[in-house]
Amino acid sequence: MTTLGNIGEHEAIRILTAKLGGHPELRTGTGDDCAVVKIPGTETDQVLTTDPVVEGVHFQSSEKPERIGNKAVGRVLSDIAAMGATPQWVLVNIVAPPEQDFQALGKIYDGIHALCTRFGATVIGGDLAQGPCLELHVFGTGTVPAGKALLRSGARPGDCIFVTGPLGCSRSGKHLDFVPRVEEGIFLRETGWVNAMMDISDGLATDLRHILKQSGVGAVLETEQIPTVGSLECALHDGEDFELLFTVPKEYAELLRSRWRERFGREVFKIGWITADLGELLLRQPDGSLHGLEGKAFEHFSG
Amino acid sequence: MTTLGNIGEHEAIRILTAKLGGHPELRTGTGDDCAVVKIPGTETDQVLTTDPVVEGVHFQSSEKPERIGNKAVGRVLSDIAAMGATPQWVLVNIVAPPEQDFQALGKIYDGIHALCTRFGATVIGGDLAQGPCLELHVFGTGTVPAGKALLRSGARPGDCIFVTGPLGCSRSGKHLDFVPRVEEGIFLRETGWVNAMMDISDGLATDLRHILKQSGVGAVLETEQIPTVGSLECALHDGEDFELLFTVPKEYAELLRSRWRERFGREVFKIGWITADLGELLLRQPDGSLHGLEGKAFEHFSG
Repeated sequence: MTTLGNIGEHEAIRILTAKLGGHPELRTGTGDDCAVVKIPGTETDQVLTTDPVVEGVHFQSSEKPERIGNKAVGRVLSDIAAMGATPQWVLVNIVAPPEQDFQALGKIYDGIHALCTRFGATVIGGDLAQGPCLELHVFGTGTVPAGKALLRSGARPGDCIFVTGPLGCSRSGKHLDFVPRVEEGIFLRETGWVNAMMDISDGLATDLRHILKQSGVGAVLETEQIPTVGSLECALHDGEDFELLFTVPKEYAELLRSRWRERFGREVFKIGWITADLGELLLRQPDGSLHGLEGKAFEHFSG
Repeated sequence: MTTLGNIGEHEAIRILTAKLGGHPELRTGTGDDCAVVKIPGTETDQVLTTDPVVEGVHFQSSEKPERIGNKAVGRVLSDIAAMGATPQWVLVNIVAPPEQDFQALGKIYDGIHALCTRFGATVIGGDLAQGPCLELHVFGTGTVPAGKALLRSGARPGDCIFVTGPLGCSRSGKHLDFVPRVEEGIFLRETGWVNAMMDISDGLATDLRHILKQSGVGAVLETEQIPTVGSLECALHDGEDFELLFTVPKEYAELLRSRWRERFGREVFKIGWITADLGELLLRQPDGSLHGLEGKAFEHFSG
């Protein structure tokens, strides 16, 4: 018997979704941060996404309930931000055992509500079901001008690679308190300069490889340019930073940096560039030496 | 400590969602089969819903995987049908332990895909996460002409109460193989005669009470008119029949029955009528005697 543990998350999703068909109103299905569909008769597209958070996997049961709620909905808002879209509707499925403290559930909901309100999203539905541990499944939609959603597949050789903030913070608890980069995502889409974008949920190295694969390109990362909280190792491989990772043609890179500073009063970080070498991810040391980055992808179900 | 088990599903949802705010584009939030939102610039509304199915609660692990997939997406399509809407997009979150048989997961996906294809819905996304048991969380959207979604709140005194098929079948396994009443829901909405509609997922008695409460009315059910597979008791209290329950003004009742027969080649069942007695649900025996129906609502988390 082949188990999910043998196959791993990414390959399992690839096999399961390979059978799915298309639709004339579907712009982008599985494989990006959100699906993108046309809204007939309008100049707007809808983005749709869903993320689970499971006790013992994505958070510990001792965690503050508001932070659990923040993370559950923050992951979805981050996916919407990664398309350059504006969040709109949210539905929340809760699974919990009968002995679940109801007051804590109320505080989880407060966390969800607070983050939604901050970014203009509205909780409009959901369900509550019995199960062995606490889980939140958040479904979210957003809107984006027709054909303008930023995909993983748009990176071009010569593009500069950027991230919106320091990486490797998730072990210090940021994976629960993070603020999804909604305003930043919309700003970046509105510049018209961004070729590819996604959010970092599985670590810089793993997530950049998604962009490389889907764009048919390679990349060089400059180790001393990567903004880190802890070690370079953590910045490359920790998941759940929820910063945006994006590429911009070289000629707009400096203009983007100055516009970004004007708008947000802080830096955006240029960490490398896109090459034509399909799937090759290299690290460039300060002495100019290049070496390949081992395929140490973050995999759910591994172990 | 107050637990979820003490409070029960319906009261817990009521308390948790009471804090949620409105939105000018939101027609109907929590409390109906789907949320209903306007799509600005069009003559169309979108309906959105989500349903969980959890191993050991909604299905047994020994169950055929295609049937699990059928049930997971069927519940969502049934919610969409209950609004008189046309299904459109589907996203599926799967939770499973690492030892989950991957082939079975493929067959679950086949079941999902088969039912979606039959009713014109398209699976466009989802996620896969590790957890203690197998669960499927299906999110679905649909479309309906603006302002025409059929709600639970529209029943009026004098309306006749109908169901689309025999009740009490869920123990015989129908809760896994059922066909959501999508075509029937659209047909009923298009007649323009239906005042209130929902699907029967928690049993006729429990679900009819939702219509009574939200419409501010009461009802009399004629025991000998309720189409049953087993006992009347099962028809009243078994959950997961997934037939549609709806009300129609008396003057259209016979016309509806004949149009229904023409369209579907089978009967639709008139089982009682709506009264002005807020919240009162009475059973009328063949001898004409009336008695109140005990509040034996189906509650998840009970026990």
